[in-house]
Amino acid sequence: MIKIVVDAMGGDNAPQEIVKGAVQALQRDAELSVVLTGDKAKIEPCLAGMAYDAARLQVVHCSEVITNDDVPTLAIRQKKDSSLVVALKMLKEDEEAQGFVSAGSTGAVLTGALLRVGRIRGISRPAVCPALPTAKGGKVFIIDAGANAECKPVNLCHFAIMGTAYAKAMGVKDPCVGLVTNGTEEHKGDPLHQETFHLLKKLQGIRFVGNVEGRDIMSGDIDVAVCDGFSGNIALKTAEGTALAVMSVIKQNIKSSLAAKIGYALFMRGAFKKIKKVLDYSKYGGAVLLGIEKVVVKSHGSSKAESICASVLQAKEAAESGLVGEIRQMLTGIDLEIAQDA
Amino acid sequence: MIKIVVDAMGGDNAPQEIVKGAVQALQRDAELSVVLTGDKAKIEPCLAGMAYDAARLQVVHCSEVITNDDVPTLAIRQKKDSSLVVALKMLKEDEEAQGFVSAGSTGAVLTGALLRVGRIRGISRPAVCPALPTAKGGKVFIIDAGANAECKPVNLCHFAIMGTAYAKAMGVKDPCVGLVTNGTEEHKGDPLHQETFHLLKKLQGIRFVGNVEGRDIMSGDIDVAVCDGFSGNIALKTAEGTALAVMSVIKQNIKSSLAAKIGYALFMRGAFKKIKKVLDYSKYGGAVLLGIEKVVVKSHGSSKAESICASVLQAKEAAESGLVGEIRQMLTGIDLEIAQDA
Repeated sequence: MIKIVVDAMGGDNAPQEIVKGAVQALQRDAELSVVLTGDKAKIEPCLAGMAYDAARLQVVHCSEVITNDDVPTLAIRQKKDSSLVVALKMLKEDEEAQGFVSAGSTGAVLTGALLRVGRIRGISRPAVCPALPTAKGGKVFIIDAGANAECKPVNLCHFAIMGTAYAKAMGVKDPCVGLVTNGTEEHKGDPLHQETFHLLKKLQGIRFVGNVEGRDIMSGDIDVAVCDGFSGNIALKTAEGTALAVMSVIKQNIKSSLAAKIGYALFMRGAFKKIKKVLDYSKYGGAVLLGIEKVVVKSHGSSKAESICASVLQAKEAAESGLVGEIRQMLTGIDLEIAQDA
Repeated sequence: MIKIVVDAMGGDNAPQEIVKGAVQALQRDAELSVVLTGDKAKIEPCLAGMAYDAARLQVVHCSEVITNDDVPTLAIRQKKDSSLVVALKMLKEDEEAQGFVSAGSTGAVLTGALLRVGRIRGISRPAVCPALPTAKGGKVFIIDAGANAECKPVNLCHFAIMGTAYAKAMGVKDPCVGLVTNGTEEHKGDPLHQETFHLLKKLQGIRFVGNVEGRDIMSGDIDVAVCDGFSGNIALKTAEGTALAVMSVIKQNIKSSLAAKIGYALFMRGAFKKIKKVLDYSKYGGAVLLGIEKVVVKSHGSSKAESICASVLQAKEAAESGLVGEIRQMLTGIDLEIAQDA
């Protein structure tokens, strides 16, 4: 049995969709137990009428909520009875609690995880690692997708290690790692990426395939795309925006032609539903926050039940695979010069 | 009559497709004249059998070619009789020559333009500015898309000015400018982007709408996306890669369903051809290199005739609109502190 703590009050659709998603996860996985933190008076009506194994679901009442309007550092310190802080306290203190899911404020989840759960020894900068679909039908993990706007080479090496460990935990065998820069040649990039290139080449325990360009991220040729948090965030969001723009161009063109409209209605609705599903990366669950002592998954703020369910199962899978232990293990094996922040 | 010089030997499909594209441009625009630089013995057979106004086409023979294997700075200095160097010399010295197109090595075109044609006074860092399609059916100009891996705030201000001038030259009225960072809030980004934000807010002559994220680049809400050359290159190539990945996912799904296959064959082939055309940004011509004393357009290395034709017409349009003069004009109007590199 693996216990996952869920912040029932975080996100645009809380608590209704969060509760529903958590219950769906319980229905799908008999080895899972869930703790919901939040306002009991709001959570309990959501649970009414749903079928679930009550022995595997616990609701822990708390009176406060951290919103996107709160300043993360202040909120984490002051709102001690918020659903987020209560959940993270449990994650830290309860040995059985092995993972956490929230669709709340990214800044608050990040700050809260750092302050209340703590970093893995040797990792100075935890990083956000979401997955994107690839042209070959698989997934690629982008790390860091936005936690650290400024990085040092050692941070990027840690990202490569953590991304490798996570890809393994998600079932990728011998994941290969690319460093995302402005060109594939060795000398490309700014000094940060040039230096990182040389460190990654020497780094044991990862399969580094060299520099890659933005166009390679979703090609399916790499499993882990290592980025500084600034350009990683731009890459992730550009990919999102481009997929939306492409689908919008397609829709416009289908709508503007009678033949295409008929073809779509008669034959292609099913195929397009599937396509949308592949491209909608919220279906893959959330972005994992790597470098924290326990598994932390941040779902999109707009997550609905399906996405929350995927995130809970993802947190369980990562915890079950021993992700945190794997990262610790990989860190002990490597050159100390790289392992310690300069 | 506007004279555009074309490097007939640059690119994967030179000289055949380059010559063909240049001739197509001549056919489409009676106010255009073209100079082709390159090996006469190879260019003339390509011209045979094509219908064009011989009075508007000149071939200037030269014996050398700069390839992707050449080191740009060395090649520009040493290969004095190369199609690129001869073309740039003519661009610099011939007052009638107002624009240049090449599908050759990006590094060599950049270096050559800097060394042989020269920068606009006040601009220390010329920048590459390609266009991408948007979800609303228009275009967005990304500057810098890769010429400068390291930038200062003043460079990004120049990019905003040059991008605005170019968008105007391409017919956009009162273009609006976004600064691409890892979040829309004012405090987002690294120190480079934070400082740039404050400079852009004060900069006269541009319509600055604030920070934008990667997902906003192709939304159609902005006309000019200002980036440092490192993350701009990643954004551009991620957009390319994502569009390819999405189209590949769509194709796979159509192929895997008989109904979708029939629907596609009977009704949707036309719509998809149009979609491909909208998304294929080579159809928009090449990436303009801004900050040079004359108009320089860099086409994709893999350009075929259609793309070269678009690039030649684009160079003519930019020259005709007085692009270089507009940039000079905008620079004289602005705060000297920003205009001069720190």
